[in-house]
Amino acid sequence: MSVDQQLSDIPAAMRACVLIGRGEIRIEERPVPTPEPDEVLIKVVAVGVCGSDVHYYREGRIGEFVVDRPLVLGHEVSGHIVAVGSAVPDSRLGERVAIEPQRPCRVCAQCSAGRYNLCPDMKFYATPPIDGAFCDYVTIQSAFAHRVPDSVSYEVAALLEPLSVGIWASRKAKIVPGSRILVAGAGPIGVIATQAARAFGAAEVIVTDPVPERREMARRFGATHTMDPITESVAELGVDAFIDCSGAAPAVKSGITAVRGAGTVVLVGMGADEVALPIPVIQSRELNVTGIFRYTDTWPTAAHLAATEQVDLASLVTGRFDLEHAEDALNADLKPDSLKAVVQL
Amino acid sequence: MSVDQQLSDIPAAMRACVLIGRGEIRIEERPVPTPEPDEVLIKVVAVGVCGSDVHYYREGRIGEFVVDRPLVLGHEVSGHIVAVGSAVPDSRLGERVAIEPQRPCRVCAQCSAGRYNLCPDMKFYATPPIDGAFCDYVTIQSAFAHRVPDSVSYEVAALLEPLSVGIWASRKAKIVPGSRILVAGAGPIGVIATQAARAFGAAEVIVTDPVPERREMARRFGATHTMDPITESVAELGVDAFIDCSGAAPAVKSGITAVRGAGTVVLVGMGADEVALPIPVIQSRELNVTGIFRYTDTWPTAAHLAATEQVDLASLVTGRFDLEHAEDALNADLKPDSLKAVVQL
Amino acid sequence: MSVDQQLSDIPAAMRACVLIGRGEIRIEERPVPTPEPDEVLIKVVAVGVCGSDVHYYREGRIGEFVVDRPLVLGHEVSGHIVAVGSAVPDSRLGERVAIEPQRPCRVCAQCSAGRYNLCPDMKFYATPPIDGAFCDYVTIQSAFAHRVPDSVSYEVAALLEPLSVGIWASRKAKIVPGSRILVAGAGPIGVIATQAARAFGAAEVIVTDPVPERREMARRFGATHTMDPITESVAELGVDAFIDCSGAAPAVKSGITAVRGAGTVVLVGMGADEVALPIPVIQSRELNVTGIFRYTDTWPTAAHLAATEQVDLASLVTGRFDLEHAEDALNADLKPDSLKAVVQL
Amino acid sequence: MSVDQQLSDIPAAMRACVLIGRGEIRIEERPVPTPEPDEVLIKVVAVGVCGSDVHYYREGRIGEFVVDRPLVLGHEVSGHIVAVGSAVPDSRLGERVAIEPQRPCRVCAQCSAGRYNLCPDMKFYATPPIDGAFCDYVTIQSAFAHRVPDSVSYEVAALLEPLSVGIWASRKAKIVPGSRILVAGAGPIGVIATQAARAFGAAEVIVTDPVPERREMARRFGATHTMDPITESVAELGVDAFIDCSGAAPAVKSGITAVRGAGTVVLVGMGADEVALPIPVIQSRELNVTGIFRYTDTWPTAAHLAATEQVDLASLVTGRFDLEHAEDALNADLKPDSLKAVVQL
Repeated sequence: MSVDQQLSDIPAAMRACVLIGRGEIRIEERPVPTPEPDEVLIKVVAVGVCGSDVHYYREGRIGEFVVDRPLVLGHEVSGHIVAVGSAVPDSRLGERVAIEPQRPCRVCAQCSAGRYNLCPDMKFYATPPIDGAFCDYVTIQSAFAHRVPDSVSYEVAALLEPLSVGIWASRKAKIVPGSRILVAGAGPIGVIATQAARAFGAAEVIVTDPVPERREMARRFGATHTMDPITESVAELGVDAFIDCSGAAPAVKSGITAVRGAGTVVLVGMGADEVALPIPVIQSRELNVTGIFRYTDTWPTAAHLAATEQVDLASLVTGRFDLEHAEDALNADLKPDSLKAVVQL
Repeated sequence: MSVDQQLSDIPAAMRACVLIGRGEIRIEERPVPTPEPDEVLIKVVAVGVCGSDVHYYREGRIGEFVVDRPLVLGHEVSGHIVAVGSAVPDSRLGERVAIEPQRPCRVCAQCSAGRYNLCPDMKFYATPPIDGAFCDYVTIQSAFAHRVPDSVSYEVAALLEPLSVGIWASRKAKIVPGSRILVAGAGPIGVIATQAARAFGAAEVIVTDPVPERREMARRFGATHTMDPITESVAELGVDAFIDCSGAAPAVKSGITAVRGAGTVVLVGMGADEVALPIPVIQSRELNVTGIFRYTDTWPTAAHLAATEQVDLASLVTGRFDLEHAEDALNADLKPDSLKAVVQL
Repeated sequence: MSVDQQLSDIPAAMRACVLIGRGEIRIEERPVPTPEPDEVLIKVVAVGVCGSDVHYYREGRIGEFVVDRPLVLGHEVSGHIVAVGSAVPDSRLGERVAIEPQRPCRVCAQCSAGRYNLCPDMKFYATPPIDGAFCDYVTIQSAFAHRVPDSVSYEVAALLEPLSVGIWASRKAKIVPGSRILVAGAGPIGVIATQAARAFGAAEVIVTDPVPERREMARRFGATHTMDPITESVAELGVDAFIDCSGAAPAVKSGITAVRGAGTVVLVGMGADEVALPIPVIQSRELNVTGIFRYTDTWPTAAHLAATEQVDLASLVTGRFDLEHAEDALNADLKPDSLKAVVQL
Repeated sequence: MSVDQQLSDIPAAMRACVLIGRGEIRIEERPVPTPEPDEVLIKVVAVGVCGSDVHYYREGRIGEFVVDRPLVLGHEVSGHIVAVGSAVPDSRLGERVAIEPQRPCRVCAQCSAGRYNLCPDMKFYATPPIDGAFCDYVTIQSAFAHRVPDSVSYEVAALLEPLSVGIWASRKAKIVPGSRILVAGAGPIGVIATQAARAFGAAEVIVTDPVPERREMARRFGATHTMDPITESVAELGVDAFIDCSGAAPAVKSGITAVRGAGTVVLVGMGADEVALPIPVIQSRELNVTGIFRYTDTWPTAAHLAATEQVDLASLVTGRFDLEHAEDALNADLKPDSLKAVVQL
């Protein structure tokens, strides 16, 4: 069956929710994309809303990435394969998949070294000028359309993307059975990082957040203790690793002091362009401070953790919207008890 | 031969150059120490002056370490073994040795994990309240009295200690044959780190320093290029690792931007308690930022590099002093062309 | 309270079950040992029987270790602290502990590098000429008397030793969440390695054993699949790591072919002095083949896994014996359904 | 300039030295290949003869790789770029290059993880059914045509391939400044591995070979000591790593016993399908035994070491042949003093 034949059942045009400029969303008609030889075409079913989507929507930019022409948002995506490129076996048609939303060059030094997330020629969904997935159909290289078992819902499959962030943070934090971990920030990523840390075997995951409701949420999702960073000090914890999911300078600074000698600091949360760090502490404890940028090779692990219910992604969803109400989904975080909004197509 | 017999040739008292308080040095008579069963007694021959010695002398403290009672300075030490403890074989008597000037507990979690430099119960020479080596005799655990070949002078043997800092920095920077390295600061440690980096196989070692004479010095000791950080930008270098030996905030900040994705930053220089770092750069490149605190298992490598003349430590010595003039040695750095002062006993 | 005072409640003599020579066991009276300054004296409560104990009993030697004078067997030990050396705080008196049964020198190159299990001067319980724990009282360095929570029984505490073997094997096998693992041999160590692998997050643990009852046992303790190596081939499995717990040459050879490129082979089982390995497979897949020798830093993890019931050690116990019947315990493995015998004191 | 235009200066046909079957070589006319969009076309200048070329010539197969149709041998190649594919910048035309002779798929799990040498879909020069470089023109993906400085001759550039094997072995052996290394076998690969080990900083490289002339050769190329394995034992050496370049079972077995605890064994030489290894030694020392299969990311390092004369590849060449005498080159190793034959085009 050729791509042309496959596409006979697929409309020529589709709906797309487009960010026109700062704060301006429009539903447009766009042509359905055609997969390259090594790609698959996917009928999108669920798309999670990420903080970065919201940031582009409200601010029109993230750092040096500026929305200077219409952009389709959304990069937490699941769906099913409806067409395959010429180099992809037909047997993949109909497969339920979670999308790893990146297109590395696969040839540069970073890609060759296995660090394709750091590819300088990366094309990443919903990062200007690359369109994302708030639309009916998307394409991705077949290797990055990851099969999910039937027991994993489309909604959960979409959330394998933020879970991948948590898994990548856990790997960078070198979490092993018995580790003691500090997580700052109990927003969506903090809660997912907490779950990932537990799934990696952490014996203790201490979560700090100034908002009581969020601390309660963290406990619900696996935190073994929570602390109010305004009133309690973490300096004596002596944890194996600190994962910052707050992006808040005071949390980053105090979190570093909580880590034992030769421990690890993983900076996940995005905040100010510069944060004053306690260099003598990093030196005298020989701490390893790093950050994460997307992920490599996380979907198989993510699918496994979700399918075996070692993590609970379904309960993260606090709002569901159709494509026409995608803008409401982007504003869902304004409600205090919101954790994760999903657009269903 | 018992320790008592050995000690028969050794005087009961010795000279010691003692820091009484901020800026106050005095030669005193002190009892010659007796080695513990697993220790050796060493007749000190050469002691290098470190920046930390100078700092204690001028300021009376380094961070939380305060000179609140008389302290013998000096931790870059060589000499020969004149007595051995009961558990140490007599065959070591007369050995020419370089001293690894630390006494870890060897039992705590850090020691058990091979990170004895991070031992919380460390007793380190010339760090309050532990006396150092500006005196005629010192003791150290036999395993940390490292034999040096006859071809290595006592002066060079003493300087295996600062070379150990350079080796440890090179290890942390993961330097391998072909690496491209940026070093900030061409003082004694910067020059030694440069030499160590070359010995580890670095193809390029770019050294920045605002002082032309120091850049010239860096080139003499192996820098492949030098740059004036005031007029030139390092941001596009894309080096594999950046080793800061300046402790200067602007150097640290700009140096971080010089590192390629997944590269390493090693903070060696001591400076302000807090430095504002470009977190988004650390994140988007997944840099590994760490610091160093002393060293583990560096003396054999240091002795090898010195004996095979892969590093040139002898040329670092710009001043020689006897113990009575140790205070002059501590002030030698006030001359602009001073690199390393040595006290000879 | 001095050691002398503490010891006032402790008898001068104790029972010890001594291996006189090949196949000859005798209950003798021995003096209760006195703890060194950094040691604790422990009233033994439970001692597991290990395959190596049985081997010494039946053969009188293991490789180059020969029982040429009376030897107390037993190195899987728990108890409570009844006296402490002068350098150990009294607060440890009464603590329920699991013993890490090794005394490394803590000074040699291996110890300094954190590999104290490879210390050439190791003194290990029940390895000639060092006595073990089939007796009322033993001493150990205080750092190796690991506190266990009240929820962990003495019997389970003793079995933290074989669990440590499983944990060490899992670490060497680099098991992470989602790993696919092959284990050969469903004896006590294979079953424990299987449990450890699951606790480390392995998604699949395939266990091979020619005996159906043992395969059934493996499934009961966490194997996701089992295979009969006589009738089924593992060559196409493509697992991340293979852990041999059989010591059988055919299992080792075929297991190696089951590993994906860059995967790991961990040889745990003891067998012939030489085994013919498929070198071209190791080369063309760049496999990492290693073995394990005891362990380092496993007790805290083991205690955590046991206390949180991520592993089930209690169900391993298939026979309980008092010290007078220790010889029966050593022969318990002759029954086909025996897994682990424990001597209770 | 299009590929068509570039090719206007390039003949349509070329000479190729083809292995027809076991022991049968023929010069044939073949069409000059056309580069794919991301490839370059290279005028071949020098091709080294590898032991695997000789093996295919004499035996018609290496393991499962069978020469069942005509095959062009040769995979140690240098030349200059004469045409570029549509995606490659014209600026590369005329570049002097050394070829990394492999075409990984770049998408599979091994490639994505940075281990492209283990790609199951690898197309490697001169490995059936992929043609090699005993011909006038070859193509390779542009990223694998590595620029060499003018100071590096074409002959030396071709030999960056065997040097890459030595570098890869040194990396796997974890050689760092000061390491003590044992190399078995002083043939071409042993001699190159020795040079690489020295360039990586090894303080001692002990080379064993039963042939005195080859031991002499090893010393000429950097061995610090040599031993006759027939008359001398290596068992007490306690080296950090053992690199087997002999493929001889006795050398592999005895070499393993020469390694200190936690040391590394790298199996480079090809020999029997199975070799009996001393498993208890691997276990009780927790040795890491691995093999190498080609290499990843070695050319930049190789070019650096050659350009800075840290290795001497030119002196390895003991015979030069033109393409018409390629068969003589394949037989050159029959002379006892032959080390490396090169075909010049």
